[in-house]
Amino acid sequence: MWTNSEDKALRVRAEAVIPGGMYGHQSARLLPEDYPQFFEKASGAHLWDADGNRYLDFMCGYGPNLFGYGHDGIDAAYTGQLARGDTMTGPSGLMVDLAEQMTAMVSHADWAMFCKNGTDATTMAMMTARSHTRRSTIILAKGAYHGAAPWCTPVRRGVAKGDRAGQVFCTYNDVESLEAAVREAGDDLAAIFAAPFRHDTFVDQEDPDPAYAKRAREICDETGALLIVDDVRAGFRLARDCSWSRIGVAPDLSCWGKAIANGHPISALLGGDKARAAAASIYVTGSFWFSAAPMAAALATLKLIRETDYLEQTVALGQRLRDGLDSVASRHGFGLRQTGPVQMPLILFEDDPGLGKGYAWSAALVKRGVYFHPWHNMFLCAAMTEADIDFTLEAADDAFMAIRAEGVWPPSAQLVAAGLVPGG
Amino acid sequence: MWTNSEDKALRVRAEAVIPGGMYGHQSARLLPEDYPQFFEKASGAHLWDADGNRYLDFMCGYGPNLFGYGHDGIDAAYTGQLARGDTMTGPSGLMVDLAEQMTAMVSHADWAMFCKNGTDATTMAMMTARSHTRRSTIILAKGAYHGAAPWCTPVRRGVAKGDRAGQVFCTYNDVESLEAAVREAGDDLAAIFAAPFRHDTFVDQEDPDPAYAKRAREICDETGALLIVDDVRAGFRLARDCSWSRIGVAPDLSCWGKAIANGHPISALLGGDKARAAAASIYVTGSFWFSAAPMAAALATLKLIRETDYLEQTVALGQRLRDGLDSVASRHGFGLRQTGPVQMPLILFEDDPGLGKGYAWSAALVKRGVYFHPWHNMFLCAAMTEADIDFTLEAADDAFMAIRAEGVWPPSAQLVAAGLVPGG
Repeated sequence: MWTNSEDKALRVRAEAVIPGGMYGHQSARLLPEDYPQFFEKASGAHLWDADGNRYLDFMCGYGPNLFGYGHDGIDAAYTGQLARGDTMTGPSGLMVDLAEQMTAMVSHADWAMFCKNGTDATTMAMMTARSHTRRSTIILAKGAYHGAAPWCTPVRRGVAKGDRAGQVFCTYNDVESLEAAVREAGDDLAAIFAAPFRHDTFVDQEDPDPAYAKRAREICDETGALLIVDDVRAGFRLARDCSWSRIGVAPDLSCWGKAIANGHPISALLGGDKARAAAASIYVTGSFWFSAAPMAAALATLKLIRETDYLEQTVALGQRLRDGLDSVASRHGFGLRQTGPVQMPLILFEDDPGLGKGYAWSAALVKRGVYFHPWHNMFLCAAMTEADIDFTLEAADDAFMAIRAEGVWPPSAQLVAAGLVPGG
Repeated sequence: MWTNSEDKALRVRAEAVIPGGMYGHQSARLLPEDYPQFFEKASGAHLWDADGNRYLDFMCGYGPNLFGYGHDGIDAAYTGQLARGDTMTGPSGLMVDLAEQMTAMVSHADWAMFCKNGTDATTMAMMTARSHTRRSTIILAKGAYHGAAPWCTPVRRGVAKGDRAGQVFCTYNDVESLEAAVREAGDDLAAIFAAPFRHDTFVDQEDPDPAYAKRAREICDETGALLIVDDVRAGFRLARDCSWSRIGVAPDLSCWGKAIANGHPISALLGGDKARAAAASIYVTGSFWFSAAPMAAALATLKLIRETDYLEQTVALGQRLRDGLDSVASRHGFGLRQTGPVQMPLILFEDDPGLGKGYAWSAALVKRGVYFHPWHNMFLCAAMTEADIDFTLEAADDAFMAIRAEGVWPPSAQLVAAGLVPGG
């Protein structure tokens, strides 16, 4: 039987020693009530919460889990290197191996720099572009997430005006809005940032329009600005190369993190020769950026990326999930908006402005052993099987039946309180 | 025999795939020629470079190594948790344990937030202070290092004007300059940042003047601004509490990193109740901030901090080193400027504006199996022994003799080229 008394007890203790009880993207504050906040263990495609409830996990740690939690080969690479040397007074030669392999796999890239957070990589991209051009203005798509530093965090509290100076916004995939942003930047354009696809929270995901991507490339070529693809979330989930290689557009810089070491802490900025001198000119560093163990894990992960069919497999599983959910939902009279790449799906409901249906359904799924997210893109991993997807479809069927029986789905109280959806 | 052909070969490969061959604080670019760039392994107080040369390491990974590289108990805590679950879809209960233990040990702190880089912690401190006060201006001591984000990195390339808006500078330990900075901030003062002691590179270190620290505290109390101690580098190396507990001054916020998990990647912002709501109001996060394995390692490290005499031991070894070096140096007619806490020493030479003596001596030490840094504070660790210190003093003796035989010590070519010291 599903219980959450341990989770509740931990939340009470957390409330005392962690501001707001939890912070950041892993706070359960904006998730349906009873979603677990704390987890005890993880293995393959599953995780167990603090009360021992087991979930088939479609968040994959919000992206890092690509080959399964606790992957034997990758973790053995990590622990093997840890026993030799990890955080030392300088990097190990593995850093060179890793830079060579990343640049061999990512077609636009001639060099690599490693860091810890995805935000480190996007910040370094911005600095590199500003150093390269000796200009300041960057173009960002409205609503796109590029990290949580003062210049990019989605919440404005604690952010000073200067942190946001030199930012111009366009609409993803809207060439006209991009042109307008370029005009606004005038002769100060340093960079255009782009997500590999529109993966904003709360809204339908959008594939990149090749015309938009190509125009961004042209503008950068015309103005000398740098084109930056922020592949932190999607990197190696859509391609064994930069995600925009699929539409034939090569950025000057790309940002990586999350899955490149299957959950071990490392991120990266990759770039082409054009931006090499600028990348060398900025001063960026961190206490753990040169640690060898995550690099060993990344090398093991890259090998699996090159040598296995993980990508085709997650696409096939994602398609099976999408098709199955559509069919199950319509049987219960619900319409789903399933968007994004099938292996990184976002699932919203038709006619659900307050996300009431989505919250009720997700909550019902959690109690049936499936961890879905009601407003953030999800992730499939290579440890999932067809049986896992079929288990999910059965749970979904059951959950649709349960919420149909409820009959009304008031807007999410959490989201209403946060001002993110209209109230009832 | 000391050779460096492997290191040289790695450097050639690195030059092709890493901008400038290496970046950040672990680049050997500004160290004496022949200093190793790449390391193969580490154990206890020693590390081995890519050519297999062994060094007694007085940099300790630039701080993270407090109890010895590859500490069995700490690494077992890490790998044990890694096998259970590390980077999951939410934190484990260890995060609550860790926040409870940190706040129990650090007297000014009521809450904790965990992150990866020291820079994350200092940036979060700035944002918390700005949110708390709804003001922008921060006071920093000239030359102090607080991280490598656009707002604080010591090199200006790639930094936009807005990134540095709202910064006023004072001189560390100079109350009058602090008062002047406060006047300049007017009614917009959000925070005063302070290093626990002056640990700037290239200059003599300074203990904090209690009058300066107390005045900073008073100013914050008078103006409502927050006092921030950046204990990333020195945390738990001077005290089993915030470093300023030694002079009786409690900050509102303190920043931690480096050694709190003995080299495993985790940093933290700690604060008092006054700043709790503000800390909860900012949005900060990272892909690996909630990972459980570094938290398990931090818990094991904190236990050693509480239960062993590591601190008294590193102080005793540091004193033995300082006294011994003074005596050996004077025997060879050299005057040393040994400053900073004995367990975090900076060693410069008298009459050495171009650091020529320091570079020659450090280079001679490296070839004798001792890794010293010629212009950055160093670190002792609890894995060092009296025999290690005595070995160092013998190597130092020998190195002094060798450089005395050279007779002239031209300024460091690397530092002259970088414009950091005057040319010959």
